[in-house]
Amino acid sequence: MNDHLTRLQAWVQAQQLDVAYISNYTNINYFTGFFSDPEERITGLFVFPDAEPLLFVPALSIEAVKKAGWPYAVAGYLDHEAPFTLIADAIKQRVAQPLKWGIEKDDLSVFKFEAIRQQFPQATFAADASRFIEGLQLIKTPAEIAAMEEAGRQADRAFAAGFAALKAGITEQEVVAEIEYAMMKEGVMHMSFDTIVQAGEDAADPHGGPEQVAIKPGELVLFDLGTNNHGYMSDATRTVAFGQGVSAKAQELHKVCLEAQLTAQAAVRPGMRAEELDKIARDIIDRAGYGEYFNHRLGHSIGMSTHEFPSIMAGNQMALQPGMCFSIEPGIYVPGVAGVRIEDCVHVTETGCEPFTHTPKAYTVID
Amino acid sequence: MNDHLTRLQAWVQAQQLDVAYISNYTNINYFTGFFSDPEERITGLFVFPDAEPLLFVPALSIEAVKKAGWPYAVAGYLDHEAPFTLIADAIKQRVAQPLKWGIEKDDLSVFKFEAIRQQFPQATFAADASRFIEGLQLIKTPAEIAAMEEAGRQADRAFAAGFAALKAGITEQEVVAEIEYAMMKEGVMHMSFDTIVQAGEDAADPHGGPEQVAIKPGELVLFDLGTNNHGYMSDATRTVAFGQGVSAKAQELHKVCLEAQLTAQAAVRPGMRAEELDKIARDIIDRAGYGEYFNHRLGHSIGMSTHEFPSIMAGNQMALQPGMCFSIEPGIYVPGVAGVRIEDCVHVTETGCEPFTHTPKAYTVID
Repeated sequence: MNDHLTRLQAWVQAQQLDVAYISNYTNINYFTGFFSDPEERITGLFVFPDAEPLLFVPALSIEAVKKAGWPYAVAGYLDHEAPFTLIADAIKQRVAQPLKWGIEKDDLSVFKFEAIRQQFPQATFAADASRFIEGLQLIKTPAEIAAMEEAGRQADRAFAAGFAALKAGITEQEVVAEIEYAMMKEGVMHMSFDTIVQAGEDAADPHGGPEQVAIKPGELVLFDLGTNNHGYMSDATRTVAFGQGVSAKAQELHKVCLEAQLTAQAAVRPGMRAEELDKIARDIIDRAGYGEYFNHRLGHSIGMSTHEFPSIMAGNQMALQPGMCFSIEPGIYVPGVAGVRIEDCVHVTETGCEPFTHTPKAYTVID
Repeated sequence: MNDHLTRLQAWVQAQQLDVAYISNYTNINYFTGFFSDPEERITGLFVFPDAEPLLFVPALSIEAVKKAGWPYAVAGYLDHEAPFTLIADAIKQRVAQPLKWGIEKDDLSVFKFEAIRQQFPQATFAADASRFIEGLQLIKTPAEIAAMEEAGRQADRAFAAGFAALKAGITEQEVVAEIEYAMMKEGVMHMSFDTIVQAGEDAADPHGGPEQVAIKPGELVLFDLGTNNHGYMSDATRTVAFGQGVSAKAQELHKVCLEAQLTAQAAVRPGMRAEELDKIARDIIDRAGYGEYFNHRLGHSIGMSTHEFPSIMAGNQMALQPGMCFSIEPGIYVPGVAGVRIEDCVHVTETGCEPFTHTPKAYTVID
């Protein structure tokens, strides 16, 4: 049994559960090595205190489960069959009357929850596997960090492709096309999220996407991108100048944001509270007079999901620990002027942190 | 109020609910015109029998909501705020004590459900908005069909790009790269799902993806792809021959699959039961001796999600009606030989059906 699965089973035992139902497909990948987004179909990992775990999937996926190296039981259902009846039968073969369940409350829909409860009307569902898994995923193993380092190198190549694509008249969307094409050509088939390229005033909307508008010389261009390396994500942001003529104001935003990012990244230490790190970056932006324009948290954890628990933000008093992986991404968004965000994801070490991406962050002019 | 939203509010009134909570972000787009995948953040549409609806989003998204033309109230929360407390306050301003709730049971997580229940401990949550919305989305309006026709034309151009990319030595993944690049270059930034290109024996796994393996002359190549046209999806499959030398067995699979697809598509009539249509295609494949290799439903409905309710399969006795949109996609997957799938999505008319895609389905050799 892999280490993640062993620890899940130990939790099932410690909580004195009869069964845990893992429904989130990213977490099923984390525990089994099998990845599939089942959409409206049903996939579930069932873990017992004593019996072997069971992976339940659409029948179409059984071969893929075996190919992924899953060594335990796998059961499937056809489209016209009732999955929760089959799940109940398979569970009862292992535990005659499972009363205490663990479920992923963050993921399990009310529909699936009611379907299970209908099969097991005596059962209780108090134990929340979501909170346990969050804690388990908080600290990455060396193998996971290596996978994220590779994802980071991919992101660095994606930035290079994006910077190389900048030329007069190219649109934000066309730059995205060049970046994702370059990645797919080298076999990186999935970005970790929709690539963001925003130029000039467009970048002042931190949740906007790339538009079909030409990038103009003298604009700052924000690139926020990441890749999915066999399930492990990268995520990084650079804001560069396209040609000469960037306004003094926009350059100042970059300068302040860069100082906030570099200072926070240099300040990371095990034992420091997450909110302290947020405050280090925020104070620099506040003092420069742009506090109101930094309207999001400093960062989010990252792993098999781009956004994992916890956030690096005000109110989070969790102490940073070696093996934690998160983003440090201050941003300043001034409507009508420009938006700047600079981001590395890092992993905490015994003495500080190491970034996964190495594309230079200093103010860079692309001609 | 747009027609979808008007009908949702009429449902809230008819069910005598105090509030309905729409949590699925695709459905929020369907009702509001605002699209955003909030990931771990909270987005919700709250609809009342008498008061104006409320859209609750992360504060970062408020500008995007206004840009999308949402004319009613929008409220936001910052990352460090407690969203369900703010939601409860906003709801109480409209309905002092909301007792009867409608929720999307297919989407709402147990976590969110418990968070709402904690705010409104007297409330009941029996009404399932998922079932109502499924029924509402079953019949597409002329405007929705027009959007899906445009998505179909995009898919036809994607096939053309994929066929043009076929050459000796190119890998399945590289063909995917060419298809998605061509789409992004014309401004189609999202496929409706990960593009599938599978050659030769690879295609015998109906849930496999593109591999980093070279496509060989004499192989059948399966393309399954679709685009997202402003929220409306296309989805189509073609299986073509790459060069000469395709085995007689593989050609026979194509012939049988094509006959099943064409016969089923020609047989569509309003009033016919969904399972009858499945049976028409399945009988042809059964009679040819390949029944065991057609191991999935004939089709799925499609709209703002690639897979909508209901499936075209055994056991579904629902009568087809004009405006229903679904796929007709028989497949034959013979391990060690080849996999063939041929698919159009269609909309039912008064007299039959019309496909959204028009790329020829007859056996085609790409040299």
